Amino acid sequence: MNSFCQKAHWKFRRMNEMEANQFREFGKEMIDYVAGYLENIRDRRVLPTVEPGYLRPLIPETAPEKPDKWEDIMKDIERVVMPGVTHWHSPRFHAYYPTANSYPAIVADILSGAIACIGFTWISSPACTELEVVMMDWLGKMLALPEPFLACSGGKGGGVIQGTASEATLVALLGAKARAICTGKAEHPEMSDADIVAKLVGYTSSQSHSSVERAGLLGGIKLRSLQPDDSNKLTGEILEKAVQEDIEAGLIPFYAVCTLGTTSSCTFDNLEEMGPVCNQYNIWLHIDAAYAGSAFICPEYRYLMKGIERADSFNFNPHKWLLINFDCSAMWLKDPSWLVNAFNVDPLYLKHEQQGSAPDYRHWQIPLGRRFRALKIWFVLRLYGIENLQAHIRKQIAMAHHFEALVRSDERFEITQEVTMGLVCFRLTGSNEMNEQFLKRLNGKGVIHLVPSKIRDTYFLRLAICSKQTEMSDIDVSWKEVKETADEILAKK
Amino acid sequence: MNSFCQKAHWKFRRMNEMEANQFREFGKEMIDYVAGYLENIRDRRVLPTVEPGYLRPLIPETAPEKPDKWEDIMKDIERVVMPGVTHWHSPRFHAYYPTANSYPAIVADILSGAIACIGFTWISSPACTELEVVMMDWLGKMLALPEPFLACSGGKGGGVIQGTASEATLVALLGAKARAICTGKAEHPEMSDADIVAKLVGYTSSQSHSSVERAGLLGGIKLRSLQPDDSNKLTGEILEKAVQEDIEAGLIPFYAVCTLGTTSSCTFDNLEEMGPVCNQYNIWLHIDAAYAGSAFICPEYRYLMKGIERADSFNFNPHKWLLINFDCSAMWLKDPSWLVNAFNVDPLYLKHEQQGSAPDYRHWQIPLGRRFRALKIWFVLRLYGIENLQAHIRKQIAMAHHFEALVRSDERFEITQEVTMGLVCFRLTGSNEMNEQFLKRLNGKGVIHLVPSKIRDTYFLRLAICSKQTEMSDIDVSWKEVKETADEILAKK
Repeated sequence: MNSFCQKAHWKFRRMNEMEANQFREFGKEMIDYVAGYLENIRDRRVLPTVEPGYLRPLIPETAPEKPDKWEDIMKDIERVVMPGVTHWHSPRFHAYYPTANSYPAIVADILSGAIACIGFTWISSPACTELEVVMMDWLGKMLALPEPFLACSGGKGGGVIQGTASEATLVALLGAKARAICTGKAEHPEMSDADIVAKLVGYTSSQSHSSVERAGLLGGIKLRSLQPDDSNKLTGEILEKAVQEDIEAGLIPFYAVCTLGTTSSCTFDNLEEMGPVCNQYNIWLHIDAAYAGSAFICPEYRYLMKGIERADSFNFNPHKWLLINFDCSAMWLKDPSWLVNAFNVDPLYLKHEQQGSAPDYRHWQIPLGRRFRALKIWFVLRLYGIENLQAHIRKQIAMAHHFEALVRSDERFEITQEVTMGLVCFRLTGSNEMNEQFLKRLNGKGVIHLVPSKIRDTYFLRLAICSKQTEMSDIDVSWKEVKETADEILAKK
Repeated sequence: MNSFCQKAHWKFRRMNEMEANQFREFGKEMIDYVAGYLENIRDRRVLPTVEPGYLRPLIPETAPEKPDKWEDIMKDIERVVMPGVTHWHSPRFHAYYPTANSYPAIVADILSGAIACIGFTWISSPACTELEVVMMDWLGKMLALPEPFLACSGGKGGGVIQGTASEATLVALLGAKARAICTGKAEHPEMSDADIVAKLVGYTSSQSHSSVERAGLLGGIKLRSLQPDDSNKLTGEILEKAVQEDIEAGLIPFYAVCTLGTTSSCTFDNLEEMGPVCNQYNIWLHIDAAYAGSAFICPEYRYLMKGIERADSFNFNPHKWLLINFDCSAMWLKDPSWLVNAFNVDPLYLKHEQQGSAPDYRHWQIPLGRRFRALKIWFVLRLYGIENLQAHIRKQIAMAHHFEALVRSDERFEITQEVTMGLVCFRLTGSNEMNEQFLKRLNGKGVIHLVPSKIRDTYFLRLAICSKQTEMSDIDVSWKEVKETADEILAKK
């Protein structure tokens, strides 16, 4: 080693020795900070008032040459970061859908960060793969998924943690594409892969999530966005009509997405009708239950997933409503071999002797690398228990119904969609423009935060129950804010 | 609220009240546990001895109905998890490439987990987007990236955190595809998108990472895997020859990947030659410097990225070698508008008033959701400082050279590739079979862990310097193990 390296070596070594003790202090200080942040989150303005570009002037233009102190970073959290945070875990936050946040998941992530294995193959960290296989079974059993989806059934099926529902939709589409190419070539040996792909057509509802459309764009596949029925549900009849049209036009129907709980209005497509159509025409049926899927841990909501046994893949996001921090999107496949075979690139440095006797999850997903995310499922399911998780879902739905009742009690408002889960869609009776002004004023005051949606040219407001800390009294605060803002808008008018 | 909901409500509420204090205890206990784990990691067998299926019998078949205690979980870590962990952060771990792990990153993730915002748009948490924009500038400046890649230049360019290099390669390919379709239609208005896509062809080296091939499969695009020159580098000449052949065959060259630091042998393609060819033929040049890119924070290694100004996109993984925990793959684009426009699906619930004045990163990536990952870049860069990060890189490279010198001092061995970074490729002089037996025996003893690779039918062992805790004395231990195993194999023979 030359003297330059000697010097580098020495410097770094000294740093390492300081680190473990610093970490004990710094880590514990952060634990206290975040406990305090979450306990007192009601006191913060839910939506920040900063303008684009606010942050750059608050910090240096370049990284420091020499280390800062961790105490300085702690101080900068309130000075630099918090003024620009939208507080998703405030009980005043009613936008989009919930994203999960729980103490057990945060602690599990500390362990995951320390082990910091990359679980792309079984051998790269057997515990990472094996705990995931079993946790996906635990979760699947909690939802009463049919046996063929579970690894413990001993069949082909099993679950995997994806990053997001968008990736699950894309992965399912790619599996469906691989299957369709295989079937197409068996029936028409004269056709090339490209010929077949050009004829493939998939189906989704115009009410499905934007990521479904995006999966079609990314996969380079025609996806038809079908107009749902008057209650905004995709039905078997609508699907079958489209399929028949396309077959007559010489196309190959291969993939359909059934949404259980749309983003706009938490509407449930008619799975029970769509399944038989898909099975009849050999169409891969993927179920996107990103938000609402968590509710299926309560038996009384399982009527909404009736017909699931006919699906090829099912996905929901525990990182939305089941208190497991992002990213944790649970996906089950009846036959993952379509994926494994389609994307199997197998360099020597990733081969190992146990190949085939346990899943190598890298074949089940878009990225190669993956964190040890099963730990947070394990911690959350154990530290809440099924009972408390069910109570959480039931309580949030009860609060949505409480808000619904308040809206219904005021004749200036209307409920625009049936309230089934933790989302209330409502509007002032009147024009879209008035409702746009209403929402702008409401969000502008910064006490609560909602986003709008629009179905068939009707603009409405979406109030989602998001924070796990939300209590009935918080809903009363939100309603008071809605009501007073309506008073102001209507008085102005 | 009916009585059932009342009960659910009450139960959940009580749980919440217990939680914050439990979290303070549990979180701090975990901080101590992981500090101890990492401090004493040398004592653990690097590769576990478990067999596939080991974990399932160790835990219940279903999630518990009622909550477990956090103390029970702490006990189960050593009983259930640790026996199946491959210890990536042991100084005895020399497989694949390093994956990052540092205390500042772990603490940043605690904060990220508590804020738990989903930064898909600017308004969804302005701090999440803004800190990312500035951190990507900090990182870009540390690497001396050309101005057009930096957001602070005021041009179109900028950086984004992707999950993995696989995703960056795919995102670049999709951007290139969108640009090629646009150019193709301008030149040939009679051609459909599908006609153009069918003619597109991209280029990569047969030595590039498996994820490049996979990106082609996922994007449904022809990617030619070119044979590199005798030193395993892709050159301008090789690329240009392929491009000309394809143009003559009526195809449209549109995308090329230049690898700086291949996975097999850490070889650097000839970027300086590839750039002009790509620019001449209007080919999107993407640079994959997943592992080696971190070394460019040291000026003395920047000769390896000469010619970078001609690239369209550049990617490296701070989550490999720059002490920022997975996932944090840094990608810069000169013109992200190709992506933004190609995948722009814009539902009302994601619109906001500041659109256009700050990036909405959801358009820059495959998933919709994203965590607050800029925090860990901020914490790591500040708490190490550029100086210590450079010292880390230099020390690891010095240790690779130390191991190289040990190998060269023993005439039974040969070094198969030039050692440039923290990877040493070597083998016993002799047959592939003997080297396969050698590696099997070496890994079987469980003291150190390596994976093999093969180039042009020559099988060799890869020894990567992975753990940030590795010291020269650890390298001596690894060499002793290699040497003794060689003695055994050669004695047997």
